[in-house]
Amino acid sequence: MTDPRFYDSRGPLALGDLAKAIGATIFDGADASFLIQDVSSVDEPGPASLCYALTDAHARRLAGAPVAAVIVTSDVAAAVPPGITALIHPEPAAAFAQAGALFFPDAGRDIGPRGDTLIDPTAVLEPGVTREPGVVVGPGARIGAGTHLAAYAVIGRGVCIGRNGYVGPHACVAYALVGDRVTILSGVRIGTDGFGFVPGRSGLHKVPQLGRVIVQDDAEIGANSCIDRGALGDTVIGEGAKLDNMVHVAHNCRIGRYVILAAQVGMAGSVTIGDGAILGGQVGIADHRTIGPGARIAATSGVTKDLPGGADYGGRPAQPIAEWRREVAAVRRLAKGKKQRDD
Amino acid sequence: MTDPRFYDSRGPLALGDLAKAIGATIFDGADASFLIQDVSSVDEPGPASLCYALTDAHARRLAGAPVAAVIVTSDVAAAVPPGITALIHPEPAAAFAQAGALFFPDAGRDIGPRGDTLIDPTAVLEPGVTREPGVVVGPGARIGAGTHLAAYAVIGRGVCIGRNGYVGPHACVAYALVGDRVTILSGVRIGTDGFGFVPGRSGLHKVPQLGRVIVQDDAEIGANSCIDRGALGDTVIGEGAKLDNMVHVAHNCRIGRYVILAAQVGMAGSVTIGDGAILGGQVGIADHRTIGPGARIAATSGVTKDLPGGADYGGRPAQPIAEWRREVAAVRRLAKGKKQRDD
Amino acid sequence: MTDPRFYDSRGPLALGDLAKAIGATIFDGADASFLIQDVSSVDEPGPASLCYALTDAHARRLAGAPVAAVIVTSDVAAAVPPGITALIHPEPAAAFAQAGALFFPDAGRDIGPRGDTLIDPTAVLEPGVTREPGVVVGPGARIGAGTHLAAYAVIGRGVCIGRNGYVGPHACVAYALVGDRVTILSGVRIGTDGFGFVPGRSGLHKVPQLGRVIVQDDAEIGANSCIDRGALGDTVIGEGAKLDNMVHVAHNCRIGRYVILAAQVGMAGSVTIGDGAILGGQVGIADHRTIGPGARIAATSGVTKDLPGGADYGGRPAQPIAEWRREVAAVRRLAKGKKQRDD
Repeated sequence: MTDPRFYDSRGPLALGDLAKAIGATIFDGADASFLIQDVSSVDEPGPASLCYALTDAHARRLAGAPVAAVIVTSDVAAAVPPGITALIHPEPAAAFAQAGALFFPDAGRDIGPRGDTLIDPTAVLEPGVTREPGVVVGPGARIGAGTHLAAYAVIGRGVCIGRNGYVGPHACVAYALVGDRVTILSGVRIGTDGFGFVPGRSGLHKVPQLGRVIVQDDAEIGANSCIDRGALGDTVIGEGAKLDNMVHVAHNCRIGRYVILAAQVGMAGSVTIGDGAILGGQVGIADHRTIGPGARIAATSGVTKDLPGGADYGGRPAQPIAEWRREVAAVRRLAKGKKQRDD
Repeated sequence: MTDPRFYDSRGPLALGDLAKAIGATIFDGADASFLIQDVSSVDEPGPASLCYALTDAHARRLAGAPVAAVIVTSDVAAAVPPGITALIHPEPAAAFAQAGALFFPDAGRDIGPRGDTLIDPTAVLEPGVTREPGVVVGPGARIGAGTHLAAYAVIGRGVCIGRNGYVGPHACVAYALVGDRVTILSGVRIGTDGFGFVPGRSGLHKVPQLGRVIVQDDAEIGANSCIDRGALGDTVIGEGAKLDNMVHVAHNCRIGRYVILAAQVGMAGSVTIGDGAILGGQVGIADHRTIGPGARIAATSGVTKDLPGGADYGGRPAQPIAEWRREVAAVRRLAKGKKQRDD
Repeated sequence: MTDPRFYDSRGPLALGDLAKAIGATIFDGADASFLIQDVSSVDEPGPASLCYALTDAHARRLAGAPVAAVIVTSDVAAAVPPGITALIHPEPAAAFAQAGALFFPDAGRDIGPRGDTLIDPTAVLEPGVTREPGVVVGPGARIGAGTHLAAYAVIGRGVCIGRNGYVGPHACVAYALVGDRVTILSGVRIGTDGFGFVPGRSGLHKVPQLGRVIVQDDAEIGANSCIDRGALGDTVIGEGAKLDNMVHVAHNCRIGRYVILAAQVGMAGSVTIGDGAILGGQVGIADHRTIGPGARIAATSGVTKDLPGGADYGGRPAQPIAEWRREVAAVRRLAKGKKQRDD
């Protein structure tokens, strides 16, 4: 369910009104007055919610799910499980983005107190929180004892930060639940909008980003790194994970426990990194890839496929490190041979 | 013309004084009391201004231009069109940088109100602007109705931001004209100094950065991204363009409409990207290159040449994607063959 | 010696108490009441301090050094020079990290004034410092005449900034000594924690970062760049060096004079870059590598070995540029040949 600590819903919305607003038609004569409570995803379907599916297989995964309705193309309508209303639309993803915006028009824009209040009166700072000038704490946020908030740190509405943590100067933490002993360095952005756009009839539709960021105990986030919140669901930084400066973690990534990410690593959406993996500087990872536990990836590698754990990798595209080294050596010999023939 | 909303000129300056200050000699006995109004570039020559040219061809392009004077080496002096005064200097670019600094000694350092004023009394916020604590708005800036300014957003002098936009926490927008419905996320830097230095007799001379940033309607700029203003002229982010986190856009780049730039993309100065192009994460582009409309470039590619539109590219250096894939496969076979022979 | 302008020591600590706290045993029956004054490194050993060594060779380098004690494994104990007490621990680096935290438990968390004070009463701003709203200056910091501090710049305790400099909006300068005429652009992070962790019996131990950043005269640091302070000792940005946006400089790097680093360059710890070297955008450099003076490295290269000065390099791994170009050409021919045979 979209977390009400972070998002104000305009819902519930009547199915018929919703269908009309997004330009969809109700496939099977369902009750147009049925109240839709929320939006959700096929992966984490919520009660009485609206989701979307792009293929028959995708739609069939909803069997038994508590969702009320699903946006599909007319081709896919027959695959929608019984008991779930099909909303027909030629562009389900774009229509779903519009529906999300109807429920949560202010998503991503509403994190701080308004006006000149720095610490919202509904925020709770435990005794023993220390702070430098200009710290902002939004409505309903909670900060644990022993945590230090440096100058101009901004903590968004509803955020929970545990005990004995540190939030550096000019860091911003929003839409996040943060554990104990977490270090967040200067200029970090936690909970920013994920990069989600779907092409539609009127250009690129922004997909409302309605998830959260979970940062587990003892994690450390380097200066100016960016951790986007989930689109639906969570982005997770595992216990004791260490991220260096300027790391980019896109929406719905899941970083395992004690993972080490060197500076300027970037990963696209929904990447999973297993416990104890180590990524060198500037490594890039394509979306939805999985890196196994304990894998080690050489600096500047580009990962385009899933990589099993417990092994070392390198290259662009990344492959087992011995193969990459063989290729580097083979190319070197090839070029030298050619040169000798030229001589 | 250097935009007076953003830059205070010490000009006009007399030609003779200017020549003396930068150590140039007037080639053809022009009137030393003639008043130079501004500096400009050969590409966008301004009235009664001073520019510089490095080659005969460069100088000849000024034929018919309204400029008053041009700094050239003695070799190039004969190529300067009639009616334009040649100033002779062994290092025209360094001398021009010095001249720019004489006109605009405070360029880049003068964006906010001084002292403790947050909203300059000459700034105009339309009714319906909402804001969180600590927002700074400089002299003469204008913010449109429905735009939300988050905590500690800094809007520089003269900046215009349209309606229904969003400026995130700790973002800084300077030297910029921003359209409607533009989303600028947390920690974004718009209008920072371009990276312009010319070697001269006393080390590296900073080239004054005197241009602007234009962000068109519906664009979105990801967290901690940096958009440098033009050196002379504008850096442009096109309508509906979407930039992910930590993207670097150097001075005088022109990003087309509905372009998508994934996270950590970086481009050097004066790059042009055609409408609808899509660049994967961590792509790098060399200066002055042009990417055609609708081109798609695979993540982590390095672009060293112009790339025609409507096609897919990959690799370092980037090439048509089928060729890149063939190369990856050929190297893989080469290394495997070698290995088999070794067995 | 750990600089008392930046770090508050809980020391001196008695040798016996220290050994007990970190779980080490005193090898040779030294006086347990001896007072240890500080922690230091084998490279820069400090008087009456504690350091650690991982190998016999490492330990032998302490001969004649003024250190009081060194943490080693039992295997290495015999190599510790006479007059220096060996503390035996199975994991010297992790034990040293713990010792550092005992001396300096607040390292990295204590840079600003507390509460609502913006300019600490013990800070010294020379006449002629100008500033925009919200500038924070910590205890004992000194700012030279003619320097401009932009909105929400944060200057940490003890920091010295010279004359005629510029600190941009939302920049943070901590643990640093900064020369004259230095330009620090918006969102820069100077003095952040280096990325130092050692595996120990209870997960990853953070190595306290106790060094400084030295920025020499006329340097320029681009927007959102990050310069970590030394772990022990200094990170150095040389005179007149120019760093573009989003450059990452890890702890203990030494950037020479008039070096040019293009945007998104990243270097791991203890890299040395010789005077006048030029690195293209997105170049990555492995830890402890040395780039010679005047070397030029093509954009997007990955440096894995030391590179002599005065030459050009490219590729991943980086090599002399002519060789890299030959390899690119050889691979291209190889793939084309294969294709022709396929036709």
